[in-house]
Amino acid sequence: MQHTDVNTLGEFGLIEHLTKEFLITQPSTLKGVGDDAAVIDNDGFCTVVSTDMLVEGIHFDLAYSPLKHLGYKAVTVNLSDIYAMNAFPKQITVSIAISNKYSVEALDELYAGIRAACDAYGVDLVGGDTTSSPKGMVISVTAIGQCEKDRLVYRNGARVGDLICITGDLGAAYLGLQLLEREKSIWLEHPDVQPNLEDQKYIIGRHLKPEARRDMIETFRKQDLKPTSMIDISDGLASEIFHICKQSGTGALIEESGVPIHPDTQLMALQFKLDPITCALNGGEDYELLFTIDPKDVDKVRFLPDIYIAGEILNAADGVKLNTKGGNLHTLKAQGWRHF
Amino acid sequence: MQHTDVNTLGEFGLIEHLTKEFLITQPSTLKGVGDDAAVIDNDGFCTVVSTDMLVEGIHFDLAYSPLKHLGYKAVTVNLSDIYAMNAFPKQITVSIAISNKYSVEALDELYAGIRAACDAYGVDLVGGDTTSSPKGMVISVTAIGQCEKDRLVYRNGARVGDLICITGDLGAAYLGLQLLEREKSIWLEHPDVQPNLEDQKYIIGRHLKPEARRDMIETFRKQDLKPTSMIDISDGLASEIFHICKQSGTGALIEESGVPIHPDTQLMALQFKLDPITCALNGGEDYELLFTIDPKDVDKVRFLPDIYIAGEILNAADGVKLNTKGGNLHTLKAQGWRHF
Repeated sequence: MQHTDVNTLGEFGLIEHLTKEFLITQPSTLKGVGDDAAVIDNDGFCTVVSTDMLVEGIHFDLAYSPLKHLGYKAVTVNLSDIYAMNAFPKQITVSIAISNKYSVEALDELYAGIRAACDAYGVDLVGGDTTSSPKGMVISVTAIGQCEKDRLVYRNGARVGDLICITGDLGAAYLGLQLLEREKSIWLEHPDVQPNLEDQKYIIGRHLKPEARRDMIETFRKQDLKPTSMIDISDGLASEIFHICKQSGTGALIEESGVPIHPDTQLMALQFKLDPITCALNGGEDYELLFTIDPKDVDKVRFLPDIYIAGEILNAADGVKLNTKGGNLHTLKAQGWRHF
Repeated sequence: MQHTDVNTLGEFGLIEHLTKEFLITQPSTLKGVGDDAAVIDNDGFCTVVSTDMLVEGIHFDLAYSPLKHLGYKAVTVNLSDIYAMNAFPKQITVSIAISNKYSVEALDELYAGIRAACDAYGVDLVGGDTTSSPKGMVISVTAIGQCEKDRLVYRNGARVGDLICITGDLGAAYLGLQLLEREKSIWLEHPDVQPNLEDQKYIIGRHLKPEARRDMIETFRKQDLKPTSMIDISDGLASEIFHICKQSGTGALIEESGVPIHPDTQLMALQFKLDPITCALNGGEDYELLFTIDPKDVDKVRFLPDIYIAGEILNAADGVKLNTKGGNLHTLKAQGWRHF
């Protein structure tokens, strides 16, 4: 048998390769692979389903991730995908594989975090699987949401002239991770030196305990606003705008001055000798929302807190471009998170 | 922190311990943890959701599990849970974590098996996650089914006097696994000796490529039969009848003479110096259905192929008993599969 390294395809390429021969045959399948979540028609509310797998040593490092935070995060990152469909999560299932180094007390901590997320977002834990693993921990969460069919928002609905909006701020979780990794290596070399993270609560919190933007979806309902397209920002802004553009058949112009970046993120980026906008474009795990709106809806978002207008949808032929603060036009490349 | 070994609780005990403080708060959650699948009300068809995690070295051994079979099995074991609710699976999500020893070609084999199962059972692959792992392979499948609310069958509906029915035959998959394990150890010691499995296709097939009983659920619809309770037999008959009895608040009497066991299973059990009924009671991975019916429905199943009447539901005070072929009455103990 030939041996092609999975790295040659990249994560998205691999998923595309593995799923390309699967056909949709069920009339109830409204959306399969290729959006934040799948959508199933029940002749009532639609079911919206998303799933993620977190692997110890790849997605989390228990040297600096408290188990309770990990449980919380494992849930919120999945809920974020449901909100990105303009739907509300209602249930989750949680499956875990654990080696025998973990005690019942350690699992209690993990599940306390899962429960805190369930409480915070009003979702029920309805199932899962618990099994042993030869080594390390794997957590797989499936989030299930509901939505009226006509309120669903997909990645493919952006139209030329739509405004590009971003919630919250970007790049912080990436820098939080860099800081934790740096302090971990210092600690490994000098176990007597206590890591000092006190003054970086914001960026560390963004990495360890991200929230999903339920509040934004509730705001959209209150404002009677339906975005034309939406995606959650888990792999960096560049990767996500490419998903929107690819699926909508458009291009896009992002204004650097419109991309929200927290002051703590700015400062930490400089400490790491990184350009803050690069962290926002190519970092990951922000779990904010990127969405597009019809320009006629601009007044519905203009004065809302925590929503930033950061660009415009262009023709596909225009590509995906960044207009820097210095006035230069850069062509962006999708980069995304590469775990492989 | 205290360190309580997870083995002290057992799989079911651990799940109960971890989930006992989770409350059901969503009106749409009809059934949470504790049945073959969760049930969600959509003001239309109900959504039925089940999930399983398969871990290399725990649930499968690639020394004798072809990847294509593994992919097929990962799907069918989940579909089995959906059928056990009297529902029809329509969609699945598949998440995998793989180490870099796996090639794209190996994944193609795995996904060919997943696709074969999707084709055979008419389900759509609608999502998932693909990530790397430091070691080995983990597969997590979530199956999503649909059912009219009034057709759902739970574990808790058995009533005193109901007849206990079993589909197919039991114990074969367990003996198939024993045989594969035995041949593997012989091969490890004497790599020049080719394992000879040719005459044991049935039991090996039952382990490597189990089917889910879609046909039975279709038969129930045709016969206008609604079982009073149902569960799929994944952990051995004893474990499953205990689940039914515990949740229904009943006891049960199983007739050894009524428990279907394939002739190949009988013979292989004897080779391994095991009692065939023990393999049926405490083996695992049969993926047959155990269900109870109202005695007035007996004519609807009596002449159907592959359904066996194997006992009767008793009062809770009577416990769960086995009437052996020799006429002895044994009190059964739930045993189940212990992976920990």
